[in-house]
Amino acid sequence: MEIDLNCDMGESFGRYTLGQDAALMPLITSANIACGCHAGDPLVMQATLRLAGQHNVAAGAHPGWPDLQGFGRREMTFSPAEAEALVLYQIGALAAFARAEGLELTHVKPHGALYNQAARDPALAAAVARAVRRFSRHLVLVGLAGSCSLAAAAEIGLPAAAEGFPDRAYLPDGSLMPRSQPGAVLESPVEVARNAVRLAQAGIGTGAIDTLCLHGDHPRAVENARVVRDALQLAGIEIARFSGSQF
Amino acid sequence: MEIDLNCDMGESFGRYTLGQDAALMPLITSANIACGCHAGDPLVMQATLRLAGQHNVAAGAHPGWPDLQGFGRREMTFSPAEAEALVLYQIGALAAFARAEGLELTHVKPHGALYNQAARDPALAAAVARAVRRFSRHLVLVGLAGSCSLAAAAEIGLPAAAEGFPDRAYLPDGSLMPRSQPGAVLESPVEVARNAVRLAQAGIGTGAIDTLCLHGDHPRAVENARVVRDALQLAGIEIARFSGSQF
Amino acid sequence: MEIDLNCDMGESFGRYTLGQDAALMPLITSANIACGCHAGDPLVMQATLRLAGQHNVAAGAHPGWPDLQGFGRREMTFSPAEAEALVLYQIGALAAFARAEGLELTHVKPHGALYNQAARDPALAAAVARAVRRFSRHLVLVGLAGSCSLAAAAEIGLPAAAEGFPDRAYLPDGSLMPRSQPGAVLESPVEVARNAVRLAQAGIGTGAIDTLCLHGDHPRAVENARVVRDALQLAGIEIARFSGSQF
Amino acid sequence: MEIDLNCDMGESFGRYTLGQDAALMPLITSANIACGCHAGDPLVMQATLRLAGQHNVAAGAHPGWPDLQGFGRREMTFSPAEAEALVLYQIGALAAFARAEGLELTHVKPHGALYNQAARDPALAAAVARAVRRFSRHLVLVGLAGSCSLAAAAEIGLPAAAEGFPDRAYLPDGSLMPRSQPGAVLESPVEVARNAVRLAQAGIGTGAIDTLCLHGDHPRAVENARVVRDALQLAGIEIARFSGSQF
Repeated sequence: MEIDLNCDMGESFGRYTLGQDAALMPLITSANIACGCHAGDPLVMQATLRLAGQHNVAAGAHPGWPDLQGFGRREMTFSPAEAEALVLYQIGALAAFARAEGLELTHVKPHGALYNQAARDPALAAAVARAVRRFSRHLVLVGLAGSCSLAAAAEIGLPAAAEGFPDRAYLPDGSLMPRSQPGAVLESPVEVARNAVRLAQAGIGTGAIDTLCLHGDHPRAVENARVVRDALQLAGIEIARFSGSQF
Repeated sequence: MEIDLNCDMGESFGRYTLGQDAALMPLITSANIACGCHAGDPLVMQATLRLAGQHNVAAGAHPGWPDLQGFGRREMTFSPAEAEALVLYQIGALAAFARAEGLELTHVKPHGALYNQAARDPALAAAVARAVRRFSRHLVLVGLAGSCSLAAAAEIGLPAAAEGFPDRAYLPDGSLMPRSQPGAVLESPVEVARNAVRLAQAGIGTGAIDTLCLHGDHPRAVENARVVRDALQLAGIEIARFSGSQF
Repeated sequence: MEIDLNCDMGESFGRYTLGQDAALMPLITSANIACGCHAGDPLVMQATLRLAGQHNVAAGAHPGWPDLQGFGRREMTFSPAEAEALVLYQIGALAAFARAEGLELTHVKPHGALYNQAARDPALAAAVARAVRRFSRHLVLVGLAGSCSLAAAAEIGLPAAAEGFPDRAYLPDGSLMPRSQPGAVLESPVEVARNAVRLAQAGIGTGAIDTLCLHGDHPRAVENARVVRDALQLAGIEIARFSGSQF
Repeated sequence: MEIDLNCDMGESFGRYTLGQDAALMPLITSANIACGCHAGDPLVMQATLRLAGQHNVAAGAHPGWPDLQGFGRREMTFSPAEAEALVLYQIGALAAFARAEGLELTHVKPHGALYNQAARDPALAAAVARAVRRFSRHLVLVGLAGSCSLAAAAEIGLPAAAEGFPDRAYLPDGSLMPRSQPGAVLESPVEVARNAVRLAQAGIGTGAIDTLCLHGDHPRAVENARVVRDALQLAGIEIARFSGSQF
């Protein structure tokens, strides 16, 4: 039994530093690297790719809405054609640095509001999946387990990975408990780690989980990542980057 | 005897339309396509690449400073490392659309102030050349004839094309007459066409000219392009896109 | 009987020109001037204010979402506090030019998606109204007739103007016929002019109309504005800028 | 004998936090608040103004080039008319929040590259001074002691304050020792404090110093500010915000 651990990376911008990329990179297997729209800039992208390469971490694109001030967390109503072009743009920009560093991008995980909107909007999900596939049939689309995003990938034969959130409670139908409900967000590292094991072993109502999302912007992010890793290993689950067999 | 005709393209943005791309594309051999920084957006980039493909026009990246309001014409002081990453970013973004359309980028021509600053600043010129070469050893760097840009390309073995401006007067040493001097900018289409023939046939003091720049933002841009084409053909000069033999 | 004619103005940006401000300014009584977020830049704002001043046209702020590429027409989910600060920012920026030119801003009309979202979202409408009132109790908020925007203004005692769209069909309850329905958008200048007279004379189900919106980005915008003006004058309706008595 | 202590404030942006505003505000007398171009956003501007108000600190505008990625530290070549409009825009945006909070802006200090370019370019300096004066004859322009900025203010009768940098060494002619020379930047807090006292007491070759700049982005910024304050007070120099008598 295997599970991938992913984390959003490269979200600094110019003079502004965010996250703990150097400390977290050794603890994960897949890095989702911001592409200069919701966060990140060319130098940050280059440095983050190099860091991923040094730690043999799978490097993926992390495209988001072009809203730096809102950090890509504000919903925006793009037409599917606009969204498709925007995602393709960002993948290409990051891929140039990968190419220059002798690396290959492995996956694409949309960010923030784009991720959430695509999870529930079939037309947007299809646009994102098309963008990924137009760039490469080998890129894996990472999407919310049980969501429109994964359905859209399946529809066009694009490899996809179902993502789970160890720090979030799930409802019996496999959907995330809304943040407005008490207990929706798990606070204790031990609870999060237990949830991670459960997700890796049993998946959710709608199927297996291929990758777990670790948050890099928490003050205790590094410590939390270690607790999750330890719990997974104790449970006999191998922490391993995406492999073709998963898709 | 051959000459390439290039024109900046894809400089519309969102709701804003600029240039006469559809009318000019059939008249040129190389299109320099804006990459979303000084102008252009993902949908415009995609549409412009398709248009270039339809007319069998060589498609190149046209990276510029990230200053949409100044249209990339204001000088900015980037460090060489920043400039290198910025150019690589823009090439990659455009290349994604080329790849999705089954096209291959042929060249890179920096825009506006980036073009002019690189022409006279060896460190910046080297940064731009490195960015191009890190993306591909086969991309041709288009630079001002006789400038630092071409020297930087030669230095690292990057193919390059020397650009001439038919609507500008040249000094005996091969440099452009400063715009502040009377007669620096040729106004009459006939004079421009005559200058185009002269540049194609004799080059400038510093060597041959490989490509002539046509301006797309002039009200009579299409008419002017036709006059230049006619003059070149009358003089027995073939209008042909970049070929490997030139580099 | 009086009616105000308003038009969005100053939506050019840097190298990009949009609209026919010089031709339309003499034909209207209120100009809504873009504030540098969805469109407009400092020089454009200054020039547009001067133009309004020359024609004795009431100058108002036209704040929009910070999305130049989408021209402020894409919905964005701002929190009320964020939206309030954003609107206040834009009013202040424009007010600086008004102050420098010896003019006073008379009104605020939100743009595009901000206008539409505020029309139906009471919390956003309240945020916009608060922003206007914090700047000045004398600024008139222009909002869709019968919408949350006007209710929010009334709630806090802010003067407001109900806007009607002569080129749009209205349902019996006073709401705009959705664009998806046939006949929702009136195409013929004569029909538009007739609708303008009707709106000015009879209002809509929910009350009187204080100002009519003329579109500046239509190829025949100037001609259409003239037809509307003529029809109003023939019907004995005076075309006059906002006066205190209306609010 | 009196001296003002100023510090750049409000340079956070969206999700990105920068500086130690809350800890430094009680230690200074003038806050230069970023206006949303090189840094800052509407909510940050509002919060920073409130903080300044709570501590009875003079609030000023800190306009910069529109280059968030470069943090306004990259030089840009604006025409004087563009720069004037840009500065006026930013002053107005901040002034709206001041007005809403019942505060009055006291001064304008350009940021980074704009500050440095204006210090040596008379045309740009004149443009900045005009922008300030068009907004208000009572706003104080803060500029590098002995620079074009102060000369431009004097030229049009605008009140101005000469700024000194306690952490920088000065040449006998009153100019800053270039950073490339050894000893140009003072590292030890004690040396900085001693320099602060010297600048406050004796000024530089070109005249008195009205305000000292404290840096907020240094890890030990708060501690350093305390050392400077203590040294000034021990020397019998009163730390006091700008007063009319200075200008």
